Amino acid sequence: MRHLLDTRTLARADALRLLDVAEDMRDTQSREIKKLPTLRGKTVVNLFFEDSTRTRISFEAAAKRLSADVINFSAKGSSVSKGESLQDTAQTLQAMGADAVVIRHGASGAPHTLATSGWISAGVLNAGDGTHEHPTQALLDAFTIRKRFFGDDSRGRDLSGLRVTIVGDVLHSRVARSNVWLLTTLGARVTLVAPPTLVPQDVSAWPVDVGYDLDEALAAGPDAVMMLRIQLERMNAAYFPTEREYSRRWGLDAARLGVLPADSIVMHPGPMNRGLEISADAADSPRSTVLEQVANGVSVRMAALYLLLAGERDTTNAEEDAR
Amino acid sequence: MRHLLDTRTLARADALRLLDVAEDMRDTQSREIKKLPTLRGKTVVNLFFEDSTRTRISFEAAAKRLSADVINFSAKGSSVSKGESLQDTAQTLQAMGADAVVIRHGASGAPHTLATSGWISAGVLNAGDGTHEHPTQALLDAFTIRKRFFGDDSRGRDLSGLRVTIVGDVLHSRVARSNVWLLTTLGARVTLVAPPTLVPQDVSAWPVDVGYDLDEALAAGPDAVMMLRIQLERMNAAYFPTEREYSRRWGLDAARLGVLPADSIVMHPGPMNRGLEISADAADSPRSTVLEQVANGVSVRMAALYLLLAGERDTTNAEEDAR
Amino acid sequence: MRHLLDTRTLARADALRLLDVAEDMRDTQSREIKKLPTLRGKTVVNLFFEDSTRTRISFEAAAKRLSADVINFSAKGSSVSKGESLQDTAQTLQAMGADAVVIRHGASGAPHTLATSGWISAGVLNAGDGTHEHPTQALLDAFTIRKRFFGDDSRGRDLSGLRVTIVGDVLHSRVARSNVWLLTTLGARVTLVAPPTLVPQDVSAWPVDVGYDLDEALAAGPDAVMMLRIQLERMNAAYFPTEREYSRRWGLDAARLGVLPADSIVMHPGPMNRGLEISADAADSPRSTVLEQVANGVSVRMAALYLLLAGERDTTNAEEDAR
Repeated sequence: MRHLLDTRTLARADALRLLDVAEDMRDTQSREIKKLPTLRGKTVVNLFFEDSTRTRISFEAAAKRLSADVINFSAKGSSVSKGESLQDTAQTLQAMGADAVVIRHGASGAPHTLATSGWISAGVLNAGDGTHEHPTQALLDAFTIRKRFFGDDSRGRDLSGLRVTIVGDVLHSRVARSNVWLLTTLGARVTLVAPPTLVPQDVSAWPVDVGYDLDEALAAGPDAVMMLRIQLERMNAAYFPTEREYSRRWGLDAARLGVLPADSIVMHPGPMNRGLEISADAADSPRSTVLEQVANGVSVRMAALYLLLAGERDTTNAEEDAR
Repeated sequence: MRHLLDTRTLARADALRLLDVAEDMRDTQSREIKKLPTLRGKTVVNLFFEDSTRTRISFEAAAKRLSADVINFSAKGSSVSKGESLQDTAQTLQAMGADAVVIRHGASGAPHTLATSGWISAGVLNAGDGTHEHPTQALLDAFTIRKRFFGDDSRGRDLSGLRVTIVGDVLHSRVARSNVWLLTTLGARVTLVAPPTLVPQDVSAWPVDVGYDLDEALAAGPDAVMMLRIQLERMNAAYFPTEREYSRRWGLDAARLGVLPADSIVMHPGPMNRGLEISADAADSPRSTVLEQVANGVSVRMAALYLLLAGERDTTNAEEDAR
Repeated sequence: MRHLLDTRTLARADALRLLDVAEDMRDTQSREIKKLPTLRGKTVVNLFFEDSTRTRISFEAAAKRLSADVINFSAKGSSVSKGESLQDTAQTLQAMGADAVVIRHGASGAPHTLATSGWISAGVLNAGDGTHEHPTQALLDAFTIRKRFFGDDSRGRDLSGLRVTIVGDVLHSRVARSNVWLLTTLGARVTLVAPPTLVPQDVSAWPVDVGYDLDEALAAGPDAVMMLRIQLERMNAAYFPTEREYSRRWGLDAARLGVLPADSIVMHPGPMNRGLEISADAADSPRSTVLEQVANGVSVRMAALYLLLAGERDTTNAEEDAR
C-alpha cells in the first residue's frame, strides 16, 4: 500500500490485511509491549486543517508506539491561513523529510489530491476529508465488529452474513460513507436509517437499503447498530428537526435497546451527544463498543502506518514522479 | 500511590517518599544523566482545560526525561468544547492506552472525579483544579524549603521547627491551600497574611495563624515568605484594593526584605508580577528561590510520575473497578 | 559557538563550518540514516512569540533527528501574554533544564538580549526577530547556492565570484538583512532591487548595490535571484503600490525568467504568494530551489544545534555568569 485515501477503492484483500495486522498490534499490546522499534527514524506529520483532537492523538499514539517521530502541524495560525496553497505546504513537508502525512481537511478530495499530485512521495493517510471519507474510522469499526462476533477466530475472516444499521445524518457523514463501502466490501449488509432530509440524493447508487423509521429497522434485528454523531451546529437548519424531535424519532434509548437481539452491538464513532442521538443507558450498556472502538483505533492506525512505511517503500523523489 | 490528587489527604510518609525520590532524580540530574529509561513505553497525557504553559512543559520535561511518550491534549478547540463530557474524554484517553493523565481543570474536584469515577485505570495527577489544590506546586515548595535549610542532609527529614508565611490572595489560591496542608503535615508552622477580603471564610478550620499586616508578620522572623501571584484580572473587583495600594501594603519590597532574618528565603510560584506583589530586588535577591522552585518542579514531577507508573501498578480494567 | 544570533557578526570561518557540518548531515540523510543519537538527553525548547509553523517544524524535525527532546512553547495563551517578562520566561526554561532555546520574537534584538543577559546558559538560536535577522534562513540560502554551483565540490568553499540579487520588500525583511551580511561575508556580490519606498534608509552603509528596476537588474545576469515574500497585510499601506502594480514591476514571471542566464537559480524563502512576487512558472521551474531550500533548512538547523550542543558546552550556571 502506498496511501490510505478511502475505503471505496480499497480492495477486499488489502482491507483484510489491514485488519489482520491490527490484530498483531493488538496482541502485542495485550502482552504489554507498548513500544515497537519498527518505525524508528521515520517522521509522521499530522497535518490538520480542521480541529480533531481525538483523531490526532489516536494517530499520534499509534505513531509513537511504533517509535516514529511525530510532528503536529495545525493549519490554524500557520502560513496556510496566510494564503499558502496545499501544494506549497505539501512540498514543504516533503522537503523536510516527512515519511507519512496524516491529513484532515475540510475539502472532500484533498488527501487524494495530495497523494496523486506528485508533490510528495510520503504516504498519505486520510484522517477525514469534508463529507467524503474517514477510512481509518471505518476500519476500526469493521475491526470492532469482527472482534465482537468472531473473537480470537477473527483473523482472515470477513463480515459475511452480518447486518449493520447506520443511523443519523448520513448526508453530511464521512463516517457513514466510509463504512458503507468497507462493510459491503467485507460482505456485510448495510441499512441506512435517517430523516428524509438527511439522506444523500445519490443513495440509490449505494449498495445499501434505506429506511426512515428507526423502530422498523431495529425490529429487523440487525447485528450492529451504528449511531452517527449529530453536529449540533447543523441543528435547526432547513433539513433538521428540533433536538427533541430528533431524539424521539432517531435516538437510541433504553426502550429501543431492549428491542435489539441479545448479541447485537451498539456503536458510535464519538464524541457522543448523550441524550441526543444516544442515551446514557445505551452508551454505557455492555453492548456498547464505544470504548473498544477507540482502543481499536490505535491498533488500526498502527497497522496502516506500518503497512505504508515499514515495507519496501518506493523512495523515488516526488518531483521526478511528477515529471 | 495510585494518584496524586491533593495534599490534604496525602500521608506524611507518602509526602516524604515523594520528596526523597525527587532527591534521587536531582542527584541524577546533577551528574548530567538527563535521560532515564524508566518509563519507556508509558504514555503520559497532559489534559489541560485551562492554559498553563509553565506547568504543562514542566510535566512534559519530567515525563520525557523518564523516556515516556507525551501527548498534549488542550481542551481548546477539542470536542470537549463541542460538548463532550469529562467522562467521554477520560474514557477515550483510557481506551487509547494512557498510563497517566495530568489534568488541569477550572472546576475544583475534577481530578478527584476523574480518579474515582472508575472511568480510567490510569494514574491521575492534579496539575491545578479551580481554587482547590495544586499538589505538585506544594511538593516542589516543600522540597525547596527542605533543600535550602538542610542541604545534603535533607533526605528523610520533615519541616519541623520551620515557620512559613504565605502572603496574598489566599481566597482564590490553590497554591496556598496545597501548601497549607502539606507544610503543616510536614511539621511546619504556617501563617497567612492577606487583605481581609481575601481570607477564606472557613480559615478558622485551617491549621494556620492569620494576619492582615505584612510588616507585623515579617517582624516575627519567618524562615520562608511565600508571595502569591496576584491575578491582575481580579484587581479592582469588589474585594480588591488598587494595584498601588496592594503593592504598598502587601508587596514584598527591598525595605521589607531587609527586615527578614539573614537566612530566610523568599518564594514565589511564578510567573511573578514584578513591582506588584514582589519587587525586582526581592525577586532577584540571593534569598529568592524562584528559579530553584522551577528546577525542583521537574524533579518533583519526575518523582510523582515514577511513583505512580514505575511500580506494580494495578492494571485491572477501569470499567470493572467501577462495577 | 555558544549562540547563533545573527549573521552580521558571524565570522567567515564559523559560517563555513556550519555549512560544512550541514553537508555531513545531508550526506547522512541521503544514506537514509535519519536518526542520529548525538543529542540524546538534550532538551530543545521552541519559544515562539510569533506563529511560524514552517520554521518551528523545521527546527523540530532537526532536533528530533538528532534525538533531542523537543518542547514547543507558543507564547500565545501562555503566561507571557499575561504579562510575564522575557526574563522570567527565559529563567524558567533555564531552570527546567533547556539546553537550547530556539526563539522567534516580534522585537528586533530579543534573541541577543536572551543570550547576553546572563539569564540562561542554554544556547540561543535566533529563528527570526522583528525586522532584524533570521540567520538560519540565510545559512540555508547560502548552502543552497553553494550546492547548486559547486555540487559535491562544495565543502570548504565560499561564494566568491557569485552575484545574488534580492528583490522585494527589503525594508521589512529580516531574511534580506541576514542574507546581505552572510552572502557578502562569504564573498558574494549582492544587489538589492525594491520599490523606492521599501529600501531601508541606512542602506548606503550596507555592502550592496541598490536598484529600483527589476528588468535592469536581471539583464545584468545574476547567478541567483532571491524573491522576498510580500506581506499582504502591508499592501496598500503608504509605501506600497497595489498588488497588480507590484506584480507587474517587481514580480518574477515567465518573461523575466527567460532573460536570466541558463544556469542561474531562483530562490524564495517561502511561503510563496504565487502570482504576486513570483509566478507559478518561475516557482516550479527547474531553476527554482524553493524545495531544496526547505530540505537544506533541516540540515543547516541540525548543524547549528550540533555545533551549539554537542561539543564541550560550558555548563556554568547562568546565574553565576550574571553575577
